[in-house]
Parts: sequence; C-alpha cells; structure tokens
Amino acid sequence: MINELYQPPLALLTDLYQLTMAYGYWKLGRADQQAVFHLFFRKPPFAGGYAVAAGLEQALQYLERFRFDASDLEYLASLTGNDDAPLFEQGFLEYLDQTKLTVDVDAVPEGTITFGQEPLLRVRGPILQCQLLETPLLNLINFQTLIATKASRIATAAGDDPILEFGLRRAQGIDGALSASRAAYIGGSAATSNVLAGKMLGIPVKGTHAHSWVMSFATEAEAFDQYAAAMPNNCVFLVDTYDTLDGVRQACEVGKTLRQRGHEMVGIRLDSGDLAYLSIEARKILDEAGFPAAAIVASNDLDEHIIESLKTQGSQIAIWGVGTKLVTAFDQPALGGVYKLAAIQQADGTWLPKVKLSEQAIKTSIPGTLQVRRYLAEGRMIGDMIYDQTQGIDPRGVIVDSKDATRRKRLVCTESTDLLQPTMRAGERVSPSETLTDIRQRAKQQLASLHPTIKRFMNPHEYPVGLDIGLHELRDKMIHEARQSRWNDEETTT
Amino acid sequence: MINELYQPPLALLTDLYQLTMAYGYWKLGRADQQAVFHLFFRKPPFAGGYAVAAGLEQALQYLERFRFDASDLEYLASLTGNDDAPLFEQGFLEYLDQTKLTVDVDAVPEGTITFGQEPLLRVRGPILQCQLLETPLLNLINFQTLIATKASRIATAAGDDPILEFGLRRAQGIDGALSASRAAYIGGSAATSNVLAGKMLGIPVKGTHAHSWVMSFATEAEAFDQYAAAMPNNCVFLVDTYDTLDGVRQACEVGKTLRQRGHEMVGIRLDSGDLAYLSIEARKILDEAGFPAAAIVASNDLDEHIIESLKTQGSQIAIWGVGTKLVTAFDQPALGGVYKLAAIQQADGTWLPKVKLSEQAIKTSIPGTLQVRRYLAEGRMIGDMIYDQTQGIDPRGVIVDSKDATRRKRLVCTESTDLLQPTMRAGERVSPSETLTDIRQRAKQQLASLHPTIKRFMNPHEYPVGLDIGLHELRDKMIHEARQSRWNDEETTT
Repeated sequence: MINELYQPPLALLTDLYQLTMAYGYWKLGRADQQAVFHLFFRKPPFAGGYAVAAGLEQALQYLERFRFDASDLEYLASLTGNDDAPLFEQGFLEYLDQTKLTVDVDAVPEGTITFGQEPLLRVRGPILQCQLLETPLLNLINFQTLIATKASRIATAAGDDPILEFGLRRAQGIDGALSASRAAYIGGSAATSNVLAGKMLGIPVKGTHAHSWVMSFATEAEAFDQYAAAMPNNCVFLVDTYDTLDGVRQACEVGKTLRQRGHEMVGIRLDSGDLAYLSIEARKILDEAGFPAAAIVASNDLDEHIIESLKTQGSQIAIWGVGTKLVTAFDQPALGGVYKLAAIQQADGTWLPKVKLSEQAIKTSIPGTLQVRRYLAEGRMIGDMIYDQTQGIDPRGVIVDSKDATRRKRLVCTESTDLLQPTMRAGERVSPSETLTDIRQRAKQQLASLHPTIKRFMNPHEYPVGLDIGLHELRDKMIHEARQSRWNDEETTT
Repeated sequence: MINELYQPPLALLTDLYQLTMAYGYWKLGRADQQAVFHLFFRKPPFAGGYAVAAGLEQALQYLERFRFDASDLEYLASLTGNDDAPLFEQGFLEYLDQTKLTVDVDAVPEGTITFGQEPLLRVRGPILQCQLLETPLLNLINFQTLIATKASRIATAAGDDPILEFGLRRAQGIDGALSASRAAYIGGSAATSNVLAGKMLGIPVKGTHAHSWVMSFATEAEAFDQYAAAMPNNCVFLVDTYDTLDGVRQACEVGKTLRQRGHEMVGIRLDSGDLAYLSIEARKILDEAGFPAAAIVASNDLDEHIIESLKTQGSQIAIWGVGTKLVTAFDQPALGGVYKLAAIQQADGTWLPKVKLSEQAIKTSIPGTLQVRRYLAEGRMIGDMIYDQTQGIDPRGVIVDSKDATRRKRLVCTESTDLLQPTMRAGERVSPSETLTDIRQRAKQQLASLHPTIKRFMNPHEYPVGLDIGLHELRDKMIHEARQSRWNDEETTT
C-alpha cells in the first residue's frame, strides 16, 4: 500500500531528534554499534483484555523502500541550530546518502492476539538505523493495531451480524482512512464504503444511497422508485430523510412494485433516532408487508457498547454500519505503543542488556533480546512468557508477573509456539506478504481460542503474561543496582 | 501536498454510495442537473466556542487532480451487485472516463475563525459531480479543521510560550501525521518534530534526543557529555531517564563544561512525573547552578487543560511539547462535519431550495445558496449572519438564532465582510495557494478579535450566529409545509 500510494521516499518521516541522535552516533563513531529495540504497548487499548496486531505489512514496505534522496539531503543540509550554523556536517549527510538498511526484524504476524509488554516487533542492527526507524514504525503499527482491536471488539458485540466500515469522511486524513479500512477488515469488519480501499486492498465494498438522493426528488416515493429503476437488484432504502416509519412503509410500496418486476428489495437503512424502537417497529412493518427477508441496516455513531445495548434491547438490526467510532477509535484514539532500547553490543562482542527505570513499575522496560512463547492447552491460549532468546528459557519453567513479582505461575500446556517470526534479515525481506483474508482468519481463530471473559468489555479477565523467571531475576538485579548506585551518588553528593 | 505525496489518482477515495447515486443520476438523465451543497459542522469541537478552518488547500489540490484512470474504471467494472451482475453499466463508466470537474467552489479562507452551521465550503455544479466529492472533501476539511482548532486551544492555554508538535508516532497514519502537523501550525504551534512535514510544508522542525540515547551509554553523565560534544550549540538534555532531579544536576555539570568551551546549554526536557513539582525544583537547580536562561521544555500527554492547570500551579515550563492529545484531538477525534444538499435547479432554470428535516432542531438543514456575512465593531467580531446569496440580505437587517427563533438581534457594526470567497470556477482554480505563514497569521489575528470569553474552555460564551430573517422565514415555511404534508398523508393512510 505504501509503495502504491506514496510518491516520494519517506525516510524523513521521522522525528528530528532521531536524526540528531543519529548524527551523534555517527560523530562518536558508534553508528554501526549493534543494538536491539522492541516495539510494544503497555496496556491493551479501550481498557480491554487484548489487542490485534496489525500494520506489519506497511512497516515492511516502509523499510523496503527506505532511502534518503537528494532532496531529503538538501533539506537536511538547510537546517540550522541555535547558533544559525548548519545542524549537520556534510560528512554525516554523505553517510546518510550511502545508508542502506541492514537491520534484522522479527515480528508477530498480523492478526495475532497480543497483550501488554509483549514485543510486536524486534529490530536489531546498527544503532543509527534502529533509531531512525523508531518513529515511522510506531506510526504504522500503533494505528493499525488500535483499529484492528477496535474492530474486533465491535465484531464481538455484533456476534454473527456483519459490520460495514463507513468511516472515510470522518477519518484522520486519507491514509487515516485507508489504513483504518485495512485494519478494520483484519479485526472483523465485513466490508468498507471506501472504494479506494476496495481497489487497493481487495476489501469488499458496500453502499447504496444518502439523504441527498431522497432530497433531490420532489417526494420520497419518487426517490425510492427512481433508485429502484436504476438499481433494481441493490435496493437498500434509506428511510429517515423525513419520517422514519413513513419511510419504511414507502419502501414496502416500492418493494412490492419491484417484486412484480422480478426483483427483491434487499433492505432498509436507519441512520438516526432511537434505533431500538425504530428497528423493532420497522421489522413489524416489513414483515406485515411481506418482506421478512429484507434486512435492517443501522448506522449513526455506533460502537461496541451501543451495539451490545441494542442487542440487549431486542433491536431488529441485522447489519451494522460503523464509521467514526471505529476508524478514529473514538474513545481512545491512540495506542500508547513505545519503542525501547533493550540491549547493546559491546566492543568485545558481548551483549549488554539495558533497562529504563520509571517511578511507575509498568513503565520500567524489559532488558534483553526478547521473544514471546505462547502456551496452549487443548487449543485454548493459556498464557504467554516473555524470555530472552539469547539465554533461552530457564529450566524452572516459571513465569513471573511483570507488575507484581509475587504472582508466579507454571504453565501446563499441550503445545507452545514462539510469536516473533523472522521478517527481515540484513535489510532484506524474508517473509512473504500475507493475504488480508489469511490475516483476518488468524485473528478470528485466535480470538476463538481466547476465554470469553478476556473478551468482555467491562473489567475483562486478565490473560496471564509474565517474564521467564531467569529474565525476571536479571531485570530485578539490574533495577536494584541502578537504584542503589543512584542512592549512593546522592549520599555522596548531598 | 496531495500532489507531492500521493501517487495514484484519488477519484475512488469516496464512499461507494456516492458512485451508486451518481449512477442513478446518470441513468435518469439527471447527471448534469445543477445543485448546491454546503460543507459545515453543527457545533464547534471540544465543547468549545469556535473552530479554525483548515484543509482547503488540500481539498483544492484534490479537486484539481480529480479524474478516473483506466485502473479505476476497470475496478468499478469488476464490482457486482446482489444478483452477481455488474453493478455499473459500461456507458456509465465511459461517462466517468470523460468526466472533468466543472464545479464552482466558494470557501472560507484557511485560518478563518468559524462557528456551527456556517458553510466552510459551498459546491455548486452538476449533481453527479457534487455527490462524488462529498466524502473526500469531508475527509480533508474535517480533520485539519479539527486539529487547527485543537492547536489554537492549546496555544491559547500556553499564552506566549511556544508549542512544539511532537505527534508523528501516535498519529493516525502517515497522512494523519502530515496533515496534523500542517493544521497544528495553522492553529498556533511553533514547530513540529516531523521532518517530512518540515521539508514538504516549510514548518520549522525541532528535537534533540530520547531516552534511548541516554541508555546507550554507561552513565547519564557520559550520555550528556557526548551529546554536548556532537551538538554543542543545540543541547536540550532529557533528564528523566533514571532520576529527574539528578538528571538536572547532571545537565548543569555538562552545561558548565560547555560554557568553558564557549557554548551555552539551551535547556532541559522533562517527559514524566509531576511536571509542576519537577519544573519548579528543576528551575531552582538551574538558577542556582548559573543557568537562568536555560529553558525547561516539558512533554507527556499535554493538552490545553493540563497546560492551564500547570500554569495555575506556577510551573516553570517555558516550552510545551504536545503530541498525542494534539494530533489525534484525543478528547474528540472527529469533527462532525457534514455536506448537505441545499438547492437544486429545475428544468425551467429556477432554483428550488431544499431542507432535510430531523427530530433534532440542530440537524434540520438550511436551504439556499448560502453566504456568511461577518460583522465587526471597532475591530472586534460581533456576530455572523447566514444568508441566501441569490436573495440578498433582507432589508430588516435582523438575524434569527437557528436553534431558537425567539432570539433575534440587529447587529450594529462598523464594518462587515463576506466569508465565502471564490476558489474554483467551472473546475478551474481561481484563488492562489496561500502561504502557511499567512494562514497562521489570519488565525492569530481573528482570534485576537474574538472576545476572550468565547475562547474559554469551560462553558464558553456563545458567539452570535443567526439566519437572515428572510432566510429564516423561508426555512420555517418549508419545514411547516413538509411536516404538514406528512401529517396529511398519515391521516389518509391510517
């Protein structure tokens, strides 16, 4: 999608500080020092129990076409610092000109169900390169993961009913819409209204007519009649331009004429008012008029909570059009994904794990070259262990809760699998693109293997994710040493 | 930006129902019937008192390059309906192939302060074309107007302090970031971290280093030292990797060494913890160490409310880095902009105004070919009148509140101006691109001419916007007639 959509190279799609740090590394002769970074979120969005990974394909496309072109370097050369002198030396710009990515990337496949603290992506390579990639990788993975998760929640609320994604007009920009259509489809929507998303991504497209169609005729009756004349096999009449239930009766009249001509009305759409009341009354009118198969489509600021409530009220909606609340993830429009240094190679070739402290335990990072092992029992996901791939799993086989070390667990499983898969080696892609259908299917299957209480919207049950006990002990020691050394410093300085 | 950024034609960046309606109009021989649509929002976002119009330049760029290419038509030809037959006839696709926009577009210049119900854009032309443009115009205008408004609120809270926009990593896609950087700059941010936005749009770029820089060295002291060696004139040290106030002391030590070498430390950055407490304590440490000019930059989930609170608490922050909450408009991530048919030309050449009813008064549309006249008294904005440009302003010179017709007002002004300006005639652009600096300046000037109580965040004073009394009376008559005729119908049918 990035290759097809975007014209210029996008290497400058990063924060300036990535370039000033890159300059610093280059200047110190450390540009090629090997480092490991992880991209992860701390807590699932929407106060939910899980997230659906998405956006990897666009991230890999971004990496594949990463390069600085002449106009990029010219722009960088024009930047000045606080002393009005050029911010970057010419030698550094020449270095960027020669830069070809050589990083290794391991990632969880799109559609994978993931949890807080687990790496979605692991980038290993020259620290200068890893650093430049932080911002674009976060941009591409954060947003699609957020929307795939939102769609998954909405699809869960809708049960077997299809979800149509209608968000283009309220999305955050052109790509905010296209990426959202893609991620929503991964998470479980059945189709989109966005025709360009249909063309570029092969997502089914849906849509019939708007209020303006009805208003452009003298009467609603004429508007429906004429729509039926133009599209006899694709009639979903929007019934709420003037008075909703009158509109339903009107649709039935046109439906009868259509039937005489050998066509069936597909359904009606409600776009305002009390959708519980109107759908129940509309269903009666349709059934009594002889249209029990005509579907009721509803739209108007729907999300998982409203759909759940409408279902509880016995509403008669069969197809759910969801726009703004889905494509902007309205109740939490950003995933707090981060990208943290976790290990760095020393001059002697050994790897030094790195930890970032914080007064909030959840913000203290996990050191090492991390992998996630998922344990299953009888096809059901029972827990995930984060471990250091270079150290392997501790023979004790115990996971420790990263937020509360007193909570420990031994997982009894029938099978297990490592989530991070090789996707790029030395800057070359090593995993093929997956089809959206396959990705969508993965999300669906994994969701089915998750306990229903974890999918609940209110106070979901917490899926067990912990650190390998060996990794936990290493991290604990590093935190204590770091705190200890600072306290000692303070004692000596104060 | 659209021309430089996007590769393919974007005519399919629309909802499918725009194409099915277009097909309907074509099939009925109505494709060229002239219509008028308005793009507007009903209420300012964030429960605020105003919005800052933005996104017009991208909308015009979109219109300028609007065309269906061969692959678009091929894709449309492949779509099927519920009967598995092609959705569109070949003749229609040939019509689209020949379609060149011929619309007239009038719009409020970017940076204009606007209010609910006022058209931001008026599109007049063949109904088929107007209809296709609904979705992309909404996508482009909604989002940038939303972000420019958010930025304006944040800048208002910050007073004379600069705002730096740091949102790329959490933005909704690539374009979600670039458009946000542009709109934020219009609304009042001083710079962005997004280097591509800097290159493409000429926005100043800012940034220094991240936690990973500090973590990649054995100690914080070494990290600061080495950054100072690489960038002696651009040192803003991020002090919270391990312990914030320790970090400030460390920065001072490096600052002293820098000073000996003839350079000044620019400042420090706080990115976590209690920003009120830490900034006050950091200021003391900096002052005592002889760095009264070193600025304290703060970031970490800031928005207008937190900035206002921090200022009230006497925090010592001089520069505000704002990311997620700004670029996603976190507390309201979509502007509810709509695009409504308001008039249609009849066979005899006369124009028929159109109104869409709703049980919610605010959702009942305003008929006609609308213009907005803004009244000023002694340089201060005192009220806006929406009137029908083809009818002119009623000689009574009274505005009527569109939500409460009992509220009427005569505006006593020293000058007045019409907000909608010609931007496109017969599909050709007639207004030049404006520089971002000029647009930003317009927003700033107009904001200064708005009463401070309208800019307040909590329960802002409502700026007077009303209908010309002649337009009000016409609309009222149309609503009554429409309601009356439906009640009559119901009496006869039930």
